[in-house]
Amino acid sequence: MVTEKIIKVHAPATVANMVCGFDILGFAVKEPYDEMWIRLTEQPGITIINKDDYQLPAEPEKNVAGAALLAMLEELTQPVGFELTIRKHIKPGSGVGSSAASSAGAVVAANTLLNGVFSKEDLVRFAMNGEKLASGVKHADNIAPCIYGGVTLIRSIHPLDIVALTAPPLFVTIVHPQIEVRTADARSILKKQVYLKDAIKQWGNIAGLVSGLLQSDYALIGRSLEDVLIEPVRSILIPGFNTVKQKSREAGALGGGISGSGPSIFMLSKDEATAIAVEKVMQDEYQQLGLDHHTYVTTIHSSGVEIIKA
Amino acid sequence: MVTEKIIKVHAPATVANMVCGFDILGFAVKEPYDEMWIRLTEQPGITIINKDDYQLPAEPEKNVAGAALLAMLEELTQPVGFELTIRKHIKPGSGVGSSAASSAGAVVAANTLLNGVFSKEDLVRFAMNGEKLASGVKHADNIAPCIYGGVTLIRSIHPLDIVALTAPPLFVTIVHPQIEVRTADARSILKKQVYLKDAIKQWGNIAGLVSGLLQSDYALIGRSLEDVLIEPVRSILIPGFNTVKQKSREAGALGGGISGSGPSIFMLSKDEATAIAVEKVMQDEYQQLGLDHHTYVTTIHSSGVEIIKA
Repeated sequence: MVTEKIIKVHAPATVANMVCGFDILGFAVKEPYDEMWIRLTEQPGITIINKDDYQLPAEPEKNVAGAALLAMLEELTQPVGFELTIRKHIKPGSGVGSSAASSAGAVVAANTLLNGVFSKEDLVRFAMNGEKLASGVKHADNIAPCIYGGVTLIRSIHPLDIVALTAPPLFVTIVHPQIEVRTADARSILKKQVYLKDAIKQWGNIAGLVSGLLQSDYALIGRSLEDVLIEPVRSILIPGFNTVKQKSREAGALGGGISGSGPSIFMLSKDEATAIAVEKVMQDEYQQLGLDHHTYVTTIHSSGVEIIKA
Repeated sequence: MVTEKIIKVHAPATVANMVCGFDILGFAVKEPYDEMWIRLTEQPGITIINKDDYQLPAEPEKNVAGAALLAMLEELTQPVGFELTIRKHIKPGSGVGSSAASSAGAVVAANTLLNGVFSKEDLVRFAMNGEKLASGVKHADNIAPCIYGGVTLIRSIHPLDIVALTAPPLFVTIVHPQIEVRTADARSILKKQVYLKDAIKQWGNIAGLVSGLLQSDYALIGRSLEDVLIEPVRSILIPGFNTVKQKSREAGALGGGISGSGPSIFMLSKDEATAIAVEKVMQDEYQQLGLDHHTYVTTIHSSGVEIIKA
């Protein structure tokens, strides 16, 4: 009798953009995460089993994890079959990389079954097909931190160039107000052209943020968490945004902004007590607005997708 | 008898922009540098003595060093008189921070006479008045590295926020083709608006460059030395630019581009032999074009203005 090998992974939520780093920065958080199991099947191809209530499609070509695995299969020389079971805890559409967790988790788990034939960069490439299915754009600012962990810079998409950035300990408070902001809509409201003087401010902040992270300079991180280009446009889609941001800073947060394309908002803090005080600010605001919401207090997580059981 | 105190300083040339870091990055080089001497006078006010052949104005309000010192005098509670002697070796208009060296050298020297009452940030603020006189804009991307040394990030001008970035050893080759590019002209040809997609590429490169410098990753520095916004517009003012850039890379340079607003071109290399090979490339190109030119092979210098004799 052959013992069937099952790989279980946790695929974390991720925060893309990181305020000033539109399309180039993202980080992984410790919680929430999706649970996924994968095993080889005799029949080639992909089988997907959804073990949650999100009613996501099970057809591989319509499922983001399926799209990522199909891209991987294309680069294998022999026919392979995978059965992937997904139990999502990251709510789709919340703006914390739910689709990226599915895509990235699937390819990391599959690659473990295949004894690691593919590099991390290959896995990012495969998983980006899931993002393409979800939002129409092959972006990597959730995928890369989900696979690499910690804070990642996507210097370039063509060619793919991912840089892991070390960061000091940072606590993350996230609020997900229960409204829908479609990534495609959040992209379409952006202006195609921006003023050079604003772009200069933005890249000053990006350089400051990268420097603050690498040099563990919390004050510099705080000063650099400013977005003069994207946030002023997108934040109008998120009720309560300005109040949450202002009061979170007053409560001691270093700064923060829209997570990905929203509607979730994240704030970074130096210590857990501040992160919890920020959570209270967020809860108060959305209770007052009468909007359902979830909050998380977590940390930037140095691991990406974790192999739980092999 | 009172021994009169004379401070002598060396104020180094600087390279602003650093390819992708338009208006926010700059670095100091070991050579060339201006020599300056300053002493207190009984009569309040500024006296300037030019000891070179550049025929720069001696009236303080028309001289960049004078403008910087006048800004400093305004913040002193008591009337003070300075006599400043300047022997410039950095040719005005060459694009390697000649005006910044005069302004920064003057205020650092004066502050030493005053026993360091002003902070480095104050000195940058004063010296920016020299830049305003020279180019109409209070930029700090030559001033800041001239005062702080090494590579500096100007995250923000209002409020002033300067970050010193550590960098691995880097050799610098500079060529100054003897043509005139006025800073004001080089600014006026820039478009006021840029495509967001190009700005994203630019800030990906800026983040990569800062990360490469702080993490001593030469390959990442090289990949990040790319400017999709400013160089394509400004390089048309510099004959031979594209050939010098391409052949310098072929000779082993990590990369480089326009120094400040030109016409000088700089290239970074990991070792001196490569920097010398790059110098040969530059000389060959400008000999072929029949353009007078100077070249320097130097290093990024961790000191800014140096006190030689106090």
